[in-house]
Amino acid sequence: MSRRAFKVLVSHPNVPPPALELLRSRGAETIICQSVPPCREEILQKVPGVDAIYWAHYQALNAGILDAAGSQLRCVSTMSSGIDFVDIPEFKKRQIPLGHTPGVVKNSVADLAIGLMISAGRHFHAGRTEIERSQWKTEQINWMMGQEIRDSVIGFFGFGGISQAIAQRLQSWNVAKIIYHTRTRKENDVDYKAQHVSFEQLLQESDFLVVAAPLTNETRDKFNGKAFELMKKSSVFVNVARGGLVNQPDLYDALTTGKIFAAGLDVTTPEPLPADNPLLTLPNCVILPHMGTQTWKTTTEMSLLAANNIINAMDGKPMVRPAY
Amino acid sequence: MSRRAFKVLVSHPNVPPPALELLRSRGAETIICQSVPPCREEILQKVPGVDAIYWAHYQALNAGILDAAGSQLRCVSTMSSGIDFVDIPEFKKRQIPLGHTPGVVKNSVADLAIGLMISAGRHFHAGRTEIERSQWKTEQINWMMGQEIRDSVIGFFGFGGISQAIAQRLQSWNVAKIIYHTRTRKENDVDYKAQHVSFEQLLQESDFLVVAAPLTNETRDKFNGKAFELMKKSSVFVNVARGGLVNQPDLYDALTTGKIFAAGLDVTTPEPLPADNPLLTLPNCVILPHMGTQTWKTTTEMSLLAANNIINAMDGKPMVRPAY
Repeated sequence: MSRRAFKVLVSHPNVPPPALELLRSRGAETIICQSVPPCREEILQKVPGVDAIYWAHYQALNAGILDAAGSQLRCVSTMSSGIDFVDIPEFKKRQIPLGHTPGVVKNSVADLAIGLMISAGRHFHAGRTEIERSQWKTEQINWMMGQEIRDSVIGFFGFGGISQAIAQRLQSWNVAKIIYHTRTRKENDVDYKAQHVSFEQLLQESDFLVVAAPLTNETRDKFNGKAFELMKKSSVFVNVARGGLVNQPDLYDALTTGKIFAAGLDVTTPEPLPADNPLLTLPNCVILPHMGTQTWKTTTEMSLLAANNIINAMDGKPMVRPAY
Repeated sequence: MSRRAFKVLVSHPNVPPPALELLRSRGAETIICQSVPPCREEILQKVPGVDAIYWAHYQALNAGILDAAGSQLRCVSTMSSGIDFVDIPEFKKRQIPLGHTPGVVKNSVADLAIGLMISAGRHFHAGRTEIERSQWKTEQINWMMGQEIRDSVIGFFGFGGISQAIAQRLQSWNVAKIIYHTRTRKENDVDYKAQHVSFEQLLQESDFLVVAAPLTNETRDKFNGKAFELMKKSSVFVNVARGGLVNQPDLYDALTTGKIFAAGLDVTTPEPLPADNPLLTLPNCVILPHMGTQTWKTTTEMSLLAANNIINAMDGKPMVRPAY
């Protein structure tokens, strides 16, 4: 395939090598930023004159970067599913194609979400803490009683790829039912025996409630005191989307006053979560440092998709996964 | 139904009420020990003259207890699946029917086992520790990379109810294959698309290896240095059976020298595990205080099964789940 050489700024040195090899095999000269964590100054210094930007981290991607790149810039792809750190209106205004990597993240995030459902529902954090405090009390029979998945109502806020991958995995667990809330019903919900419900029903009926929806103005702070008030006292709340969908002080209150049973969080506000955050003091809260996509298999798939977004755009074709 | 009243010693005050109600509805006078943890002295004091013993905890059940009960003793049931704490030859010699509660424990243990596969394979313990140490480094991209279940070889040591319940739950995860090792092939393995293999194959091929087999003279220390040596460096080792199947110093060595990737343990040697046990210092070891059956749903099912074992024996019928 003939194509003129093009320059790609890669914002991070640890992008999986297969993606860089793919870009180079298609004529790219890769300009790789070396700072970890990524340093805006280094990016601003290296970005002028590039044809494409491969944005491999979560920092603000906005007019400042686009201005520094220059008017020859042809396309940008993030290596992420969520794009809440991108100034989309700015991209639309300039008509610069923007790609991201949804879909492929679903598998590793789905595994992690089910891990959070179980570890929060079954007291993994409290159990370990009690070993460390020499307070092991299995002999009480009724110690650390947790929630089972079988016969439970599994609820999803959002029903995109991640929720569907979780629902797929739960098909053989004998759950009572799968429900979800989205603005409009998803036509393929029948594939997962899932039922569209109102937000109130989702809150009232879920035994396990999994949040897997984009952070937008509409979803910000959606899980607040009023929402937790409607949930079952025995319910397990899991968030693998973005911390901003949850009002964190209200979640803390719900967990300490028994409004809900437990929470499992891969995402928080802010990130990194400070070590003195009060959520870290709670026995019924499992917290992870945003590692939903942290497997080589999925990270490599994400990196290749981002590369293919750029290759398509440089060929004048639609991106594989355009972000707008 | 007519039956003379009979006396049952219940070794623990926290047996779920439905089981006690069932026993009483069938003519039982329940003599309930009040100590937590159970106190052998109290049991020895209350057991003389009873017709049945409802053994609701893990302490030694042997000739001393049977002698104290007296020759009128008609039957005993544990409220547990494993019966490694029972002196079986002593029961056989005296021809006293012994029941236990396998089968029903499988559901809550299966959930917990999958929780351990994911939490160990995806660095849940290390991730939390790094938050607490202010060492959150997601920005490195290649930080905390873990193992996914899809496309993995799932191996079971033992293929009874618990392994089958796990295999059932994994049917819709797109695993590469399910293999297991038992002395003889299980006829119903086709129901789970599972394949019988040698112990060596199990060690060599498993990406996730789950131990769910009884502790016997044959299985004691089965997972030792020689076994870990044969496993994949990327493998995740999970034990939900008994700590005694594992040589724990050898496991510590395997986890610290990279012979295996991670371990998830619900059972240890001894229990309770002392707070200064070296396994608790490892970032790649998830440890729980033996809570496989700790849900109300499963604990109640176990308690009812133990009650029905006793009721059957008092009726002169075979126990629902005889232990020998």
